[in-house]
Amino acid sequence: MGSLTHTIERKPKGNEAVTRTEALVEAVRAKIANRALGPGDRLPSVRRFARTMGVSPSTVVEAYDRLAAAGVVRARRGSGFYVTGADSPPLALTAPGPLRDRSIDPFWVSRQSLDADSSTLKPGCGWLPADWMPAAAIRKGLRAMGRADGAVLADYAGTRGSPALRRLLLGRFADEGLAVRPEHIMLTGSGTQAIDLVCRLLLRPGDTVLVDDPCYFNFRALLRAHQVTIRGIPFTPTGPDVSAFERAVTDEAPRLYLTNSALHNPTGATISPQSAHRLLGAAAARGLTIVEDDIFADFEPAPSPRLATLDGLDRVIKIGSFSKTLSASLRCGYIAARAEWIEGLVDLQVATSFGGPSPVATETIVGILAGGTYRKHMDDVRRRLLRAREEVTDRLATLGLVPWIVPRGGFYLWCRLPDGLDSAAIAQRCLEENVVVAPGNVFSVSQSATSFMRFNVAQSSDPRIFTVLERAMNAID
Amino acid sequence: MGSLTHTIERKPKGNEAVTRTEALVEAVRAKIANRALGPGDRLPSVRRFARTMGVSPSTVVEAYDRLAAAGVVRARRGSGFYVTGADSPPLALTAPGPLRDRSIDPFWVSRQSLDADSSTLKPGCGWLPADWMPAAAIRKGLRAMGRADGAVLADYAGTRGSPALRRLLLGRFADEGLAVRPEHIMLTGSGTQAIDLVCRLLLRPGDTVLVDDPCYFNFRALLRAHQVTIRGIPFTPTGPDVSAFERAVTDEAPRLYLTNSALHNPTGATISPQSAHRLLGAAAARGLTIVEDDIFADFEPAPSPRLATLDGLDRVIKIGSFSKTLSASLRCGYIAARAEWIEGLVDLQVATSFGGPSPVATETIVGILAGGTYRKHMDDVRRRLLRAREEVTDRLATLGLVPWIVPRGGFYLWCRLPDGLDSAAIAQRCLEENVVVAPGNVFSVSQSATSFMRFNVAQSSDPRIFTVLERAMNAID
Repeated sequence: MGSLTHTIERKPKGNEAVTRTEALVEAVRAKIANRALGPGDRLPSVRRFARTMGVSPSTVVEAYDRLAAAGVVRARRGSGFYVTGADSPPLALTAPGPLRDRSIDPFWVSRQSLDADSSTLKPGCGWLPADWMPAAAIRKGLRAMGRADGAVLADYAGTRGSPALRRLLLGRFADEGLAVRPEHIMLTGSGTQAIDLVCRLLLRPGDTVLVDDPCYFNFRALLRAHQVTIRGIPFTPTGPDVSAFERAVTDEAPRLYLTNSALHNPTGATISPQSAHRLLGAAAARGLTIVEDDIFADFEPAPSPRLATLDGLDRVIKIGSFSKTLSASLRCGYIAARAEWIEGLVDLQVATSFGGPSPVATETIVGILAGGTYRKHMDDVRRRLLRAREEVTDRLATLGLVPWIVPRGGFYLWCRLPDGLDSAAIAQRCLEENVVVAPGNVFSVSQSATSFMRFNVAQSSDPRIFTVLERAMNAID
Repeated sequence: MGSLTHTIERKPKGNEAVTRTEALVEAVRAKIANRALGPGDRLPSVRRFARTMGVSPSTVVEAYDRLAAAGVVRARRGSGFYVTGADSPPLALTAPGPLRDRSIDPFWVSRQSLDADSSTLKPGCGWLPADWMPAAAIRKGLRAMGRADGAVLADYAGTRGSPALRRLLLGRFADEGLAVRPEHIMLTGSGTQAIDLVCRLLLRPGDTVLVDDPCYFNFRALLRAHQVTIRGIPFTPTGPDVSAFERAVTDEAPRLYLTNSALHNPTGATISPQSAHRLLGAAAARGLTIVEDDIFADFEPAPSPRLATLDGLDRVIKIGSFSKTLSASLRCGYIAARAEWIEGLVDLQVATSFGGPSPVATETIVGILAGGTYRKHMDDVRRRLLRAREEVTDRLATLGLVPWIVPRGGFYLWCRLPDGLDSAAIAQRCLEENVVVAPGNVFSVSQSATSFMRFNVAQSSDPRIFTVLERAMNAID
């Protein structure tokens, strides 16, 4: 970002003698930088600008010529000088702008977290800090890509994505007790895209979809994009309330149920074997399809029951990715499902993305997974998370925030605020001090999580988070 | 597609005795399969269905009970039988069947080309061979990524993707005479994904969309996924037939027009300034939005009129990518459009892909574009294509294939077969010999391009292509 910042902030140097021409040049640049002038806008006429600035017209002409030479403006014959856009301010690309005032909806945490600058603290965001990720292994992988075959570097992926990565995944599934054949798996651009493709295949506007309440906020955003009716099933420390699930399945004829069964987002809970079994029974009785988003699997200290494994991919579709564990910059997700569904999903991926995920990304992931690095990295991450969870739990306790449960793994803590405080109001206040927290109702279909917040323990090491949080809690009290 | 097809098409087996009950069961299943009945719909009352089918009520009751036992419908007390969705067919974009035998539909060329092994020749495919791509620059770029900041290697991209790449694109647009502000641009996972997001933003099932006839086959595939009505506008060597366009805009009230205005796929034609002007006038008069997929821009020997530039992004949405010119393995596309549309598209990208395109990919692209390598690479590619076009034209002439026009640039030749030969039949034969050609009707909404074929001159250097083609032509003659 070096040269860019320099371009934007190109101010007259403090102690140097600044000529009048230079001052004019800087005045124009400043207008462009603060967006008073945008690409395509006409500069003031020479005569008028000379009058405004109290200089001679020839000084203005010289300034405009310098700006034209720098490519910042260009002359049009007989018509004046126009801003080219070469200097147009990149600040605006990352500045939050009106987003800061936007109401707290299912997009709020995503957009605040994804577009936060490096000075913003993000205890509400849904991924590990970059310095928790296996940078050395990624660097090594990318250097190895520098020696890869030309086709890997330049060609489209096949429609199902890297055969090597699919093979690796099949091996992992077999280790988990889920023996599936190659025609049951495809790679996608990301875990989110995987769920989106499944929704495109199976849902029609107006269908009913069950989610947990609370659930990952982007499930709500994604399902909105599919224009379906969303019903929340109350979530308990052992998974969804199965009786409520059974009633909803009977009464509402839902087409899909979308869930994380292990290390559930946002609560960190894991479904019990009994609940998993009953839930699958209810689904089978009524022909319901289940999408099990299993992106937190590798954060588990020990494997837990999986719907996809119990069901054998009959009515459960298994989704995963490496964005949470390895890199969100080498994005790639996968779908394991019935072969005939995969065939339809491949068509949909061709229609909407053309090829499978980037070979550069997938082959780099294969390199990292195939070596022992990934396993060691995850061992380390799990140990660090254990410590971080304890520390953050203690800090939150001093503010009166109590975790709903103590999760077995992962990085989430779903906490209740003291005295029924409104987490949305607190989130707005925290944002004013550049801290992005995740207020409960972004996760809740029924909007019943007003006094909850999700914390990411790996993103909560900076003490300023708790100072800002305390101030916000006191302010709205 | 084995078991699904079986489920959907579960017809009474030919020679078996079929009971009346079974016939009713199959009749209901057929209605569900063809979507005459959807999840949640009520079955006809027992009495009414008995009358309609000329059977006794007890036969209907038995059929409904069987369907309920199979989970296809369920009884609600005192209210009748309802479709559960268990049998509701997924969105089938193509007919089922093994890929090699599958009918020649808009997915045929994509799937054959994307999944071809290295021994397959692909004169019908839509991209340059890997050895035409700037491998050295990509390798250097990836090695440089090995030294990049940890955030670039592991974090999600912001919601609009790399600020540096967006800045670069703004500069390129300004050079083309299209001065736009940062809030008018966003990066996407690919050019195809860019168009898909725009369709998601602007289209609803049942809307009408205009495309050129012929047009890029994946426009047809993509629009199928959006369940819209597709109308083709006859394409001429100077762009779409403007009178036909005007009539269609008036008569059909289309929501979108999707086109390549320069180096059109598959013909290689470029719209004339007069046609562009008239077309925009017609669009403006009826509030039509235009999506201009400009992915071939850099293959032009000199810039041609662009709808987006003439229109200034008022009603034209500009789409592009680097998959054709630089790498399809570092995938990234972009959208330039009205700021309020971009804002909506960003929400859609968050919901369906979470972050913008991979930072590893986009920063590598920035490195290549910012140096002079890319310009030199494209100069070289254009020169090579000129030679290849001449050579392939000569070779095709010996088989009696004549280009519809001689394109100004790009890699396509849209050729007419001699004696009205059927290109689909030829394509099936060529595939048996591991040559993927692109038969005319995959590009044609009206199915009026039976005797045309699209050739990619950069993928047609192997003499075996012409031997196989000749043999296929003779075989079906």
